[in-house]
Amino acid sequence: MSFSNPVEYHDAAPEVQAVYDDIKCTRNVEDVNNFWKYLAHHPATLSRTWQSLKEVMAPGALDPLLKELVYVAVSVTNNCAYCVASHSAAARRLGMSDEMFGELIAVVGMANETNRLANGYRVPIDAALQDSF
Amino acid sequence: MSFSNPVEYHDAAPEVQAVYDDIKCTRNVEDVNNFWKYLAHHPATLSRTWQSLKEVMAPGALDPLLKELVYVAVSVTNNCAYCVASHSAAARRLGMSDEMFGELIAVVGMANETNRLANGYRVPIDAALQDSF
Amino acid sequence: MSFSNPVEYHDAAPEVQAVYDDIKCTRNVEDVNNFWKYLAHHPATLSRTWQSLKEVMAPGALDPLLKELVYVAVSVTNNCAYCVASHSAAARRLGMSDEMFGELIAVVGMANETNRLANGYRVPIDAALQDSF
Amino acid sequence: MSFSNPVEYHDAAPEVQAVYDDIKCTRNVEDVNNFWKYLAHHPATLSRTWQSLKEVMAPGALDPLLKELVYVAVSVTNNCAYCVASHSAAARRLGMSDEMFGELIAVVGMANETNRLANGYRVPIDAALQDSF
Amino acid sequence: MSFSNPVEYHDAAPEVQAVYDDIKCTRNVEDVNNFWKYLAHHPATLSRTWQSLKEVMAPGALDPLLKELVYVAVSVTNNCAYCVASHSAAARRLGMSDEMFGELIAVVGMANETNRLANGYRVPIDAALQDSF
Amino acid sequence: MSFSNPVEYHDAAPEVQAVYDDIKCTRNVEDVNNFWKYLAHHPATLSRTWQSLKEVMAPGALDPLLKELVYVAVSVTNNCAYCVASHSAAARRLGMSDEMFGELIAVVGMANETNRLANGYRVPIDAALQDSF
Repeated sequence: MSFSNPVEYHDAAPEVQAVYDDIKCTRNVEDVNNFWKYLAHHPATLSRTWQSLKEVMAPGALDPLLKELVYVAVSVTNNCAYCVASHSAAARRLGMSDEMFGELIAVVGMANETNRLANGYRVPIDAALQDSF
Repeated sequence: MSFSNPVEYHDAAPEVQAVYDDIKCTRNVEDVNNFWKYLAHHPATLSRTWQSLKEVMAPGALDPLLKELVYVAVSVTNNCAYCVASHSAAARRLGMSDEMFGELIAVVGMANETNRLANGYRVPIDAALQDSF
Repeated sequence: MSFSNPVEYHDAAPEVQAVYDDIKCTRNVEDVNNFWKYLAHHPATLSRTWQSLKEVMAPGALDPLLKELVYVAVSVTNNCAYCVASHSAAARRLGMSDEMFGELIAVVGMANETNRLANGYRVPIDAALQDSF
Repeated sequence: MSFSNPVEYHDAAPEVQAVYDDIKCTRNVEDVNNFWKYLAHHPATLSRTWQSLKEVMAPGALDPLLKELVYVAVSVTNNCAYCVASHSAAARRLGMSDEMFGELIAVVGMANETNRLANGYRVPIDAALQDSF
Repeated sequence: MSFSNPVEYHDAAPEVQAVYDDIKCTRNVEDVNNFWKYLAHHPATLSRTWQSLKEVMAPGALDPLLKELVYVAVSVTNNCAYCVASHSAAARRLGMSDEMFGELIAVVGMANETNRLANGYRVPIDAALQDSF
Repeated sequence: MSFSNPVEYHDAAPEVQAVYDDIKCTRNVEDVNNFWKYLAHHPATLSRTWQSLKEVMAPGALDPLLKELVYVAVSVTNNCAYCVASHSAAARRLGMSDEMFGELIAVVGMANETNRLANGYRVPIDAALQDSF
């Protein structure tokens, strides 16, 4: 089996089909993204990743849109083109507007800049910040 | 002048004092953090960074707490200890609860994991995702 | 000379050809990969990198397959698509199975996740860990 | 509850104690590391991370020592000091010698270097590498 | 409006056109790069980024070519393909030779390697280095 | 032998002493930095790294100060505290002024920011940039 191709539903083992079905049902989509079809080359990773993601991205103290925006922020920082595309699309579906996206990327850019300013000047942590955690 | 020490208000040039005053006034704090006191070694960077940050972090389509959570997410991803401390504290002041922090870090962790799963399996971007941007 | 094209053997200076010959002989391959054909634009870098890599990747306390797996792990973490492709192929040639690749990527994913959990919670190093190094 | 302190066993909720017990039993250790005692501030993350790690690091097509070496490689690349310390110690317990550690770090260093050489020269993926995946 | 396409001059709002005009005039170019045409989807980011970049990249204690070489070094380290392409081209225009590019990438590669050697061996900062900052 | 301590000259093997001597002679310093005293735990890495660094950092098409500034830029981007300290000190010795350091860090910050803006907006490489490489 080549890793160059996605594992499509009709070629998948029953345990993989079960994960695909749960993704489609949970997200109310017709088909799963390529991400899942490639993870399916290692069914244990597919299953574990989906269970973890379903748990972590569920509504809680933070709402699902905010979680997708954070996902985009991390993916942009790490330069994962696939992840930027898929999580930007997910955020759109949950209501991200053009203006929200623009402000998000601006914050991500500034954070990446000031992270390096702090590194460059070797800024020591303020006692007050240390204590407040 | 040594870069090992913060530039305190009473030792600062008037242009630096003016930025400190604006930070204290805008944020309603008694003193500025070490971050600003070290940037003050290069006044042009201090001034430009503060103007940019004030503009980017202002309320807009995204609220200030959400922006601070994104800042924490990027800083954790980049492992900037100073920035994690200062922006976690800022998020606390804006209302971040323990549960919100816990969920935030969980999302950041998952995003860093799945970014690498996508890299490892070299997942091609779905046509549908490409078009939706 | 344009950097957009690989330096092919017949166009290469003798010092570059000598490195190509040593790579082909050491690895028992017909031709060298694009990586070397682009480094050849700076012969000193080509020569130094090949000498270093030959020394570092040789059998020692760690066997060559293990070293290639580590190479893939770093390349996936840094999102170097070329390096993921070339070192995954090298690992395959040395015996990496599909199951080994799947487990490797799973470990890489988890490590990238828990690295950020440790950053986010600012976990101090245990005294026992400090001493054992 | 402050996030600045570890959650010790006697202060922990039963669900946290159960995870601590499972870690101690699985790894045959007297106490759990700080990593777990800080994750315990968010019990869902503690439980999920431990379950995932136990599954991913178990013996399989790759042996546990190799998996710990990969963990060290990723942690060194990301500069997570806590993770370098804890996974180096884990690798030591599983049999990593001084010479193995030295060779591991050498490979990690070279991979981080050649990842950037590939980026800098924008090396295109060889057709043969593309096909072999 | 789709983010998949650049904002061309004739479709741009007056505030965006004004930034494009200033870039073209400052750099003496016929048209602006895609980078600016995509930032234009969020005019506040376009304007702020251009003002900052114009200030930071201006001749000062460091000359413009040196600043572009540093920009290439950071972009190669972060694996931003767009930025490597655009800042390598800018450096070429300012006089970067093939040999300078080759040496630059060699330094970037070594720095990325030794950064990880320092992490792996957890090298403590020498007292003399600490004091000299 | 513990990796927690530096390898001092009087405890070092002759091959390690020879490298220390060459570093001290080449750089005209009384003692070598901790970086070398920790690499000495793996003499092959010590020797290879020193030979490579000596070659790469030598005067060439780029002068030694410029190379040290690039080293600082990469180290700040990767957040290697040891490397920022040691290469900032090296740059100081070669003539870096406070103003040069300030401008350097400003460029590094901007590059890290715009790298992420390019990622976030998924900016395609301009045809003209592609061709000019």
